[in-house]
Amino acid sequence: MKPERILFIVLDGLGDHAYRELDGLTPLEKASSTGLKRLKENGSQGLMDIIAPGVPPSSDVSHLVMFGYDIEREYFGRGPIEALGEGVELEEGEIAFRGNLATVRIENGYPVVVDRRAGRIGSEQTRELTGFLNEELGEFQGFRVRFQPLSEHRFVMVVSGEGLSHEVTDNDPHAEGKPVILCQPVEEARDREGAERLANLVNSITLEAIRRLSRHELNRIRAEKSLQEANAILVRSPGVKRRMASFREKWDLNAACVAAGLLYKGIGRATGMDIYRVEGANGLLNTNIAGKLSKALELLEKYDFVYLHFKGTDVASHSRNPVAKYEFIQRFGENLRLIDESVLTDTTIVVTGDHTTPCDRGMHSGEPVPILVSSGGLRKDDTGVFSEREAARGGLGRMRGCELMQVLLDSIGRTVEYGTRPSPKRVNYMPKQLAYLRLKEV
Amino acid sequence: MKPERILFIVLDGLGDHAYRELDGLTPLEKASSTGLKRLKENGSQGLMDIIAPGVPPSSDVSHLVMFGYDIEREYFGRGPIEALGEGVELEEGEIAFRGNLATVRIENGYPVVVDRRAGRIGSEQTRELTGFLNEELGEFQGFRVRFQPLSEHRFVMVVSGEGLSHEVTDNDPHAEGKPVILCQPVEEARDREGAERLANLVNSITLEAIRRLSRHELNRIRAEKSLQEANAILVRSPGVKRRMASFREKWDLNAACVAAGLLYKGIGRATGMDIYRVEGANGLLNTNIAGKLSKALELLEKYDFVYLHFKGTDVASHSRNPVAKYEFIQRFGENLRLIDESVLTDTTIVVTGDHTTPCDRGMHSGEPVPILVSSGGLRKDDTGVFSEREAARGGLGRMRGCELMQVLLDSIGRTVEYGTRPSPKRVNYMPKQLAYLRLKEV
Repeated sequence: MKPERILFIVLDGLGDHAYRELDGLTPLEKASSTGLKRLKENGSQGLMDIIAPGVPPSSDVSHLVMFGYDIEREYFGRGPIEALGEGVELEEGEIAFRGNLATVRIENGYPVVVDRRAGRIGSEQTRELTGFLNEELGEFQGFRVRFQPLSEHRFVMVVSGEGLSHEVTDNDPHAEGKPVILCQPVEEARDREGAERLANLVNSITLEAIRRLSRHELNRIRAEKSLQEANAILVRSPGVKRRMASFREKWDLNAACVAAGLLYKGIGRATGMDIYRVEGANGLLNTNIAGKLSKALELLEKYDFVYLHFKGTDVASHSRNPVAKYEFIQRFGENLRLIDESVLTDTTIVVTGDHTTPCDRGMHSGEPVPILVSSGGLRKDDTGVFSEREAARGGLGRMRGCELMQVLLDSIGRTVEYGTRPSPKRVNYMPKQLAYLRLKEV
Repeated sequence: MKPERILFIVLDGLGDHAYRELDGLTPLEKASSTGLKRLKENGSQGLMDIIAPGVPPSSDVSHLVMFGYDIEREYFGRGPIEALGEGVELEEGEIAFRGNLATVRIENGYPVVVDRRAGRIGSEQTRELTGFLNEELGEFQGFRVRFQPLSEHRFVMVVSGEGLSHEVTDNDPHAEGKPVILCQPVEEARDREGAERLANLVNSITLEAIRRLSRHELNRIRAEKSLQEANAILVRSPGVKRRMASFREKWDLNAACVAAGLLYKGIGRATGMDIYRVEGANGLLNTNIAGKLSKALELLEKYDFVYLHFKGTDVASHSRNPVAKYEFIQRFGENLRLIDESVLTDTTIVVTGDHTTPCDRGMHSGEPVPILVSSGGLRKDDTGVFSEREAARGGLGRMRGCELMQVLLDSIGRTVEYGTRPSPKRVNYMPKQLAYLRLKEV
């Protein structure tokens, strides 16, 4: 039986460098003799530049590119995607920012950030304060403003109205001890006037929010208790909600998502996947690997495409801990025994990262990610174990992120020959809606 | 002596997977110790995505891409190319369909295909019936229609007139027991109105053809003899004949074609190559390999570029027979001894496929093709034998079909430095028509 469905596993930030504490191996190399070996023997590996060599991608862009979306045309910014991941409903055209309640002190008239999370203020107080902001600022200078509380100090700020463009900077300095940034149009704004309008609006909202939150009863009580006052809002990652083609519309695939991190659930929701939760899945190093993998395997019974995301690898990378990263991949690799032979035969299984996050750098690099495609529908290469080094001579060669979906569709026989058609596009001579010629009189 | 001419050998559908019956090797791998080894030692190999990773190309598009044509701009559809291969003359702007005389029976007013080849009706009867259709339908609803008989049940239908676009579907259901398809504009038709017009015309012609052929004397006789009546026409692969630059115009190369399959001869004719026939060349597994290769070597005496095509590999692939494929490549490889040392020295020799046709899939896949370039004018790599797996780490790397001609031209010293010119294009400082500066008075 030829493969007819796809299990797409992302180990976030998978690519890495070699470390002395891992016997001169990368975290992946050291864990590659686990169940990953069996997958490798059933397929080919390669290196993939998500965007282009040397360009470090952000996670949202990276996933959308690998899923075959045209970022220039279809991407609408991280704010709305994270909001979707949190279950926030957005209308088309609404602009969404991720936000934090924060603590500032005023120095020479400048609000300077003391705590970006207002002493990690609890969800209940955040609900109360965002409710207050909605009452005070809900209709503001002719625009609609809405604060939706999330967990702890987090919220989503949604702005809408005529003539706004989302192409503005954060006001969040992303560091403590720094003043709040003046929101401005980004340099490459296409709708500069709309961006100016939104930037002014954000600056006014920020000033008003500081003024009003500072006088709020709740902050008086927090001050008395020597808690950080939630006397400011920091907003970031603006984006505008636009309609995005679903996986079904784009690829004619029925898709499901198993992820814990909100960005990844957001990507799933934005691309029209069904989102599934798993007990003990938390987007951390101690997540329930077996539970997530089992759920994904179960979903393959009714979906054509299952996206399974693990964040642990990236968590370890950002905390510059190659041993923790190796141990996570090792545990993941051992759990691959849950995949039985029949699944190996009838499923194309991808294991890759959304970007390289080397532990010695602690942030995304522009190096390509290693990718492994196990599939009965594709050629097998003669490389050894799955690793960054072996991948450099693998049968998949050096590919681009935007090319991946086509390779996967081909592996399950879902491609149409290019050419032999009136137009050299992927058009079939057969009309989509078959109709038949009928004789008028016989 | 540096190479100054090119022998371009296509083993159709060359790329493949590994098979147990070939000792875990691919057909190419198992045959790679033949004369292919000598070619490999004189060059480099690599993997080539004709269009892009995962995109299975059709044979016509693939050849044109490898020959450096811009498909979006220069390709005009398979029908006219096959017609050219059959020696049919086409005027610019004429729309050509490949066609079959077929047998239908009428069910509830719908013609249902009983035999797509009308009992493989002979060439003579096809000539008679297409002649009859020309008389009856030659001038039809203000358009010109022409049926040109080919061998057996085959013909070419040529349509011309104002305001027609070739962007329509087949009426051929490509299967027996299915009704004749209603010809319609393809979904992405650019000239929708013109395509509607052609679709309506094709549907009317089809109905009229069924009506008139059913009453033809010859079919009455066939019916009496219990032969399938040739009472319908099935048409497919429409395309419009457009002027295409010749090999000489495009690359300043004098080119010849040695191929038996009509599509491949058609590609040769469409690109202005001289076409040569070889005794015993039949586009099948038992073709005259030695004869074709000898002819190609002989042609290298007077041509800069010789295109030599073998179909056997693809024939074996489509009949899912890896052993036959291996044996064909093995015979081909043994015949390479016909290439003597001097040819090896003064000729760039390419061996590649136009697409991958894995025997276990029985149809084109989107996997890259292995390519071998033997040339005294290029670097040699350190891979072993020519094979899909070794090619993945070969010196040619992973290339695109559209990049190939430039590499080949470079190998024979026919390229111009990019840059060091007023514009960084392939423009020479030297004007094409040399003129000289003259002093008015000396």
